[in-house]
Amino acid sequence: MRNLNEQTVTQAVVDLLSGTPDPRLKALLVSLITHLHNFAREVELTEQELQAAISFLTATGKKCDDKRQEFILLSDVIGLSMLTVAMNNKKPEGCTESTVFGPFHVKGAPRYDNGADIANGAVGEPCLVRGTVTDRNGEPIAGAELEVWQADAEGNYDVQYPDLETHQARGVLTSQQDGSFEFRTVVAVAYPIPVDGPVGELLRATGRHPWRPAHLHFMIKAKHYQTLVTHVFRNGDQYLDSDAVFGVRQTLVADWIKQPDGGYTLTYDFVLNPEG
Amino acid sequence: MRNLNEQTVTQAVVDLLSGTPDPRLKALLVSLITHLHNFAREVELTEQELQAAISFLTATGKKCDDKRQEFILLSDVIGLSMLTVAMNNKKPEGCTESTVFGPFHVKGAPRYDNGADIANGAVGEPCLVRGTVTDRNGEPIAGAELEVWQADAEGNYDVQYPDLETHQARGVLTSQQDGSFEFRTVVAVAYPIPVDGPVGELLRATGRHPWRPAHLHFMIKAKHYQTLVTHVFRNGDQYLDSDAVFGVRQTLVADWIKQPDGGYTLTYDFVLNPEG
Ligand SMILES: [Fe+2]
Ligand SMILES: [Fe+2]
Repeated sequence: MRNLNEQTVTQAVVDLLSGTPDPRLKALLVSLITHLHNFAREVELTEQELQAAISFLTATGKKCDDKRQEFILLSDVIGLSMLTVAMNNKKPEGCTESTVFGPFHVKGAPRYDNGADIANGAVGEPCLVRGTVTDRNGEPIAGAELEVWQADAEGNYDVQYPDLETHQARGVLTSQQDGSFEFRTVVAVAYPIPVDGPVGELLRATGRHPWRPAHLHFMIKAKHYQTLVTHVFRNGDQYLDSDAVFGVRQTLVADWIKQPDGGYTLTYDFVLNPEG
Repeated sequence: MRNLNEQTVTQAVVDLLSGTPDPRLKALLVSLITHLHNFAREVELTEQELQAAISFLTATGKKCDDKRQEFILLSDVIGLSMLTVAMNNKKPEGCTESTVFGPFHVKGAPRYDNGADIANGAVGEPCLVRGTVTDRNGEPIAGAELEVWQADAEGNYDVQYPDLETHQARGVLTSQQDGSFEFRTVVAVAYPIPVDGPVGELLRATGRHPWRPAHLHFMIKAKHYQTLVTHVFRNGDQYLDSDAVFGVRQTLVADWIKQPDGGYTLTYDFVLNPEG
């Protein structure tokens, strides 16, 4: 442990971690620290660059509060979230695919009756969303809990309005006996992820745009089924092939259909994967 | 950019980064993100584990303020700081070696005349520190600025006392015409790095102790010479072979010699490396 150099320090850290009681934690830390050390050696990281990284991470932490999760945003824009989602949600053909969770979910979303308007004052063109929750055989799943959240016509989630005291365009519904659900809301639009923090700086420094194609978030929970965290993306959106967080899957793209009365309808059927 | 899986998402991110104007930033990000993705695949990182990592980083950021830098502490305990220091401070034989900067440096340390007592009320046994600043040929370097900081007899730096309004055991001195310097202070003792934050949790979870062997920090600046950031470690300390931040170098270990009057003296001669 004396006179460690940039090569030998890695083994010294790994040796110290050998005393970690939890074998999974040990494996995670050994792999992560080895990869970080390999990175530092590979690029010959300078002390100024390490200091800049520390400042960046500190600012990222400072930007987080109960309505803003800048580290999720960071994980999202570097593809780590989508990688983890893809790796952990392999499902049989026919099941609805998963995508990133994103930073805008909040606990305590209001419950609504089937057919209700969850917009609750959010601005935007009216939209009726309906569909079913079934298993792979098309058998209806009754009593599934569907949590929905989305941006309004300004591209903002309710939590992005500092003075808003209520939930808008966000709610929890329950599927009916026949597996169906239906609710009213506003049309989701493409939006830029928040760029007033360190992640925005990173995007600007790398010449990347911050846009996500229009989407609705869904988290669907039902007894004996794996929880599904996903989006439904709007067909035709100009950002479907350049989503800032790498989340688009073709099977999740659907049409928002304009109706004679001026509103839109979206129909999407979810297929859940059994647990275990 | 649609239907990315845990393999293809890495290349998609790397492709997007190809637009980064600064080539060094591009190289750093491509390497770092590739290594992070490789880590996630290697350990088959779960979504819960990614969420736990995000919570850990968020808490680490929240713990930082103008007197506490938890991310430096994190970098230190995973050996990344020492790796970076070792890689960037290769010097000819005879030059004083560098070691980690640590999280307890603060700007605005008071200036003292040669011979002054920098303890300024810090508790501890009295100690006289003296030595020289020279080049490799033993030629004195006059006017070198020596910044010193250390823990007191309780193992605390001044910045760890929330109500302390002044600087203690911390100061800036200048080498004399003959390259010599001298100051009074208190004896440095071994101390645990702060464990009341996420880094402390990490150490407990991995069964590691938080102790650092007793040391004085020095940052020495002189015109035409590379800035030297280092410690002098106390010989005989029980943690010299298990420093929590991997910083000990044998050439930096020195004797604190007890004097007949009950105080201690430490003599250490610094040798600077020319710039360029
Ligand atoms: Fe979203
Ligand atoms: Fe220290």
